[in-house]
Amino acid sequence: MLPTRTLLDSITTKARLGTDVLAPATDALAECEKAVLVCATGMLASDDADRMREAARADLDCHDVVGATLRLLLREGGGGTRLLAAQLEACAIACERSNELCRAHAGRHEHCRLCTQATTRAIDACHGVREALRP
Amino acid sequence: MLPTRTLLDSITTKARLGTDVLAPATDALAECEKAVLVCATGMLASDDADRMREAARADLDCHDVVGATLRLLLREGGGGTRLLAAQLEACAIACERSNELCRAHAGRHEHCRLCTQATTRAIDACHGVREALRP
Amino acid sequence: MLPTRTLLDSITTKARLGTDVLAPATDALAECEKAVLVCATGMLASDDADRMREAARADLDCHDVVGATLRLLLREGGGGTRLLAAQLEACAIACERSNELCRAHAGRHEHCRLCTQATTRAIDACHGVREALRP
Amino acid sequence: MLPTRTLLDSITTKARLGTDVLAPATDALAECEKAVLVCATGMLASDDADRMREAARADLDCHDVVGATLRLLLREGGGGTRLLAAQLEACAIACERSNELCRAHAGRHEHCRLCTQATTRAIDACHGVREALRP
Repeated sequence: MLPTRTLLDSITTKARLGTDVLAPATDALAECEKAVLVCATGMLASDDADRMREAARADLDCHDVVGATLRLLLREGGGGTRLLAAQLEACAIACERSNELCRAHAGRHEHCRLCTQATTRAIDACHGVREALRP
Repeated sequence: MLPTRTLLDSITTKARLGTDVLAPATDALAECEKAVLVCATGMLASDDADRMREAARADLDCHDVVGATLRLLLREGGGGTRLLAAQLEACAIACERSNELCRAHAGRHEHCRLCTQATTRAIDACHGVREALRP
Repeated sequence: MLPTRTLLDSITTKARLGTDVLAPATDALAECEKAVLVCATGMLASDDADRMREAARADLDCHDVVGATLRLLLREGGGGTRLLAAQLEACAIACERSNELCRAHAGRHEHCRLCTQATTRAIDACHGVREALRP
Repeated sequence: MLPTRTLLDSITTKARLGTDVLAPATDALAECEKAVLVCATGMLASDDADRMREAARADLDCHDVVGATLRLLLREGGGGTRLLAAQLEACAIACERSNELCRAHAGRHEHCRLCTQATTRAIDACHGVREALRP
């Protein structure tokens, strides 16, 4: 696998955020984007799908919001500080929501346990990039 | 074409937001999602692409952010008030940025002029839904 | 709402496919992208969600495939005839699958009935554009 | 990082395709989805953007098509053999096109060189999964 850092180093020369900030953050968001989709699929296929509907919907919302945030960051986070800060804030909230709802099922479902790990890392990544955006 | 209202009325029974709020807002965002992508394509193909790079990138960012927001709304805006409010805020900022950058080219490029119309309506839609979310 | 035709006319000068082919096709795909997402949401929230899981998953697959196809078309269908033909083929299959699975629930669920209408139109649109691509 | 295999093993029990097929394929597509977006951003920001417009547009098309294919696979490749085979075919074509166009710029642009590596792996992944789908 290509390290994200190598990839971003091949283009980022004038970006506001350095590759040392962007690379781990995009990795965390990419992992999260994948984990919440797999987890939603697992929940909807499960025998007790019925009581995990809200969590599945939160995962699908989270997948979309994380995906959009990730694409902003991969375009070098060049899209204006204000937009990036607001989108990272929405992304952290989407991850917190999935995290909270999946945590309730983590004892019974391994995919929910893995999903809470991924959303936890994504929340940290969002806060880390927001911190780095501060002047 | 199926009116969005008819479509949303076929499912929304328990949603926080009524169809009269959701339907026009999703229409405005869907139009904007399309207009910014077409406009970015037009700018990148144009003879003076060089001076519209920032606007094209802003349009691509806007496309992604509007798309994620639209999908939250189409899932009935059920995903928690806090998430929806934050995503709508990011969406309004993304649209404002495209609007401002395309406005500078609207005299020379019809697609930029149409794009500023679409982003203006999307900004209003974001504010309208945020207003409706207030308790 | 901005007519898609006006939007596409503002950029398409050298496209292989004329606006009279692209505009109605993108409208049909945009409607379908929306209808399958709303329908999946409706099925997963329904009392008899359990027996509609396969249809809901088919709708989510369809949403993703239609969305990608739509974005190719909005970028003027400029991406090479071979790619466009293959993606339209996949798109038609995704729509046929949703159509078939939702049809089984159309008597009980209005959103499934509307969804089958939208996928029917999208299938026709895919075939229409493929036809127009032939030399 | 969570290995994709661990994630997919947490849900795939009845999938047509085993995790040993799905996990490396989704990793290759996820890498490609990222690489083509970064490469397009690099090309559009470059001094010689003008002669790479077609390659940039091919990368954006590729990003969308790979993304949709990836999401089908992450939903366990459960969406019907016919759909999956057709979408993998379109995906391979999209990757071949990016590969061919970026190869021409790989000597001057490191991001184009990395992109051709990623699309090459994605093409192999598409063919591998198609092979595994055969009865």
